[in-house]
Amino acid sequence: MNHVYDVIHRRRDVRGQFTGAPIPDEVLARVLSAAHAAPSVGLSQPWDFIVIRDAATRAAFHEHVMHERDVFAATLPDAAPFHKIKIEGVRESTLSIVVTYDPDRGSPAVLGRHAIADAGLYSVCLAIQNLWLAATAEDLGVGWVSFYREPFVQQLLDIPATIRPVAWLCVGPVTHLEQTPDLERHGWRHRTPWQQAVHTDRWTAPTPT
Amino acid sequence: MNHVYDVIHRRRDVRGQFTGAPIPDEVLARVLSAAHAAPSVGLSQPWDFIVIRDAATRAAFHEHVMHERDVFAATLPDAAPFHKIKIEGVRESTLSIVVTYDPDRGSPAVLGRHAIADAGLYSVCLAIQNLWLAATAEDLGVGWVSFYREPFVQQLLDIPATIRPVAWLCVGPVTHLEQTPDLERHGWRHRTPWQQAVHTDRWTAPTPT
Repeated sequence: MNHVYDVIHRRRDVRGQFTGAPIPDEVLARVLSAAHAAPSVGLSQPWDFIVIRDAATRAAFHEHVMHERDVFAATLPDAAPFHKIKIEGVRESTLSIVVTYDPDRGSPAVLGRHAIADAGLYSVCLAIQNLWLAATAEDLGVGWVSFYREPFVQQLLDIPATIRPVAWLCVGPVTHLEQTPDLERHGWRHRTPWQQAVHTDRWTAPTPT
Repeated sequence: MNHVYDVIHRRRDVRGQFTGAPIPDEVLARVLSAAHAAPSVGLSQPWDFIVIRDAATRAAFHEHVMHERDVFAATLPDAAPFHKIKIEGVRESTLSIVVTYDPDRGSPAVLGRHAIADAGLYSVCLAIQNLWLAATAEDLGVGWVSFYREPFVQQLLDIPATIRPVAWLCVGPVTHLEQTPDLERHGWRHRTPWQQAVHTDRWTAPTPT
């Protein structure tokens, strides 16, 4: 069940199914090694991975996320549907992995970044998806929490000001992966067919290829 | 040979090995469908894929890239090592896929994006890595060209001003995938061991987990 397409389509963004069971060291090593094998602009490998098991650190982050949850809820005309949705599994998951971006790595001349300042940030995201798919292949769940302010995470984890946190990922064994994304199960939003996203030769109304 | 780890480690950023042979429709469909199965903030699926076969369009882009290659070369104290490196396979590859980001999709309330404006852009990159791995599993090469100015690509492909081009990918059958990244083979830069990128509990000097 570890074939690429199977894993790509089985992968979910997990909030509610973490068991908290341990992750064997060799499994975590394979997952981090897969992340580190991602492509990067100018071979700059501008990512770092902070593996967080410390309970107090995760509790402090959880509290911050709960606050940001309220901030977002306050922007909604009707917050009731949102409040039904679990948005993180920070404390129940086995560990967290924070992925960061260092724009100075590979400087002064990062091949391929002179015209597109964000290219290094893009590389970090490619590593995140490698991590996510490798974890899925290992039957681990991954949940990307994005209800946070970057300066809070920098301060919490002693991250230097020049390094940008890109993702807070909750990782660990799960009871199961849902077949349908949480936001779709809760009626928040529905997935579109892939053909709707495809254009031919130039930007037009999407048409199937 | 299509297992996740094999594909993740076999994947390369291809410039020189494209054959130009056709891509069967069903293969392209699987690859695009895999890209579209990526996670996205608030299930916004903010990406589009412009599949470009038109030779004139690709030639115009190629010319622009050659100009930007010179712009970058002019910033280097010694451009000789750079000039040995092929940076794109726009005309030799079978087709190009431009991946774009639409920040307005899923608005007004994208769940998970209120605190991190770039979260939608991150989603697009996750789709790109899905595409890349699926293509690798199909024995296709993918090369991300980043020597371009975004406004040029917007104009070339009639992309609306609110939509941002994120990647120009060259895609197609290849004679082979190199075992070592081009930039490493050419001595431009070398990969680091993954352990160097891993920190424990907070930002510190990297230590193995």
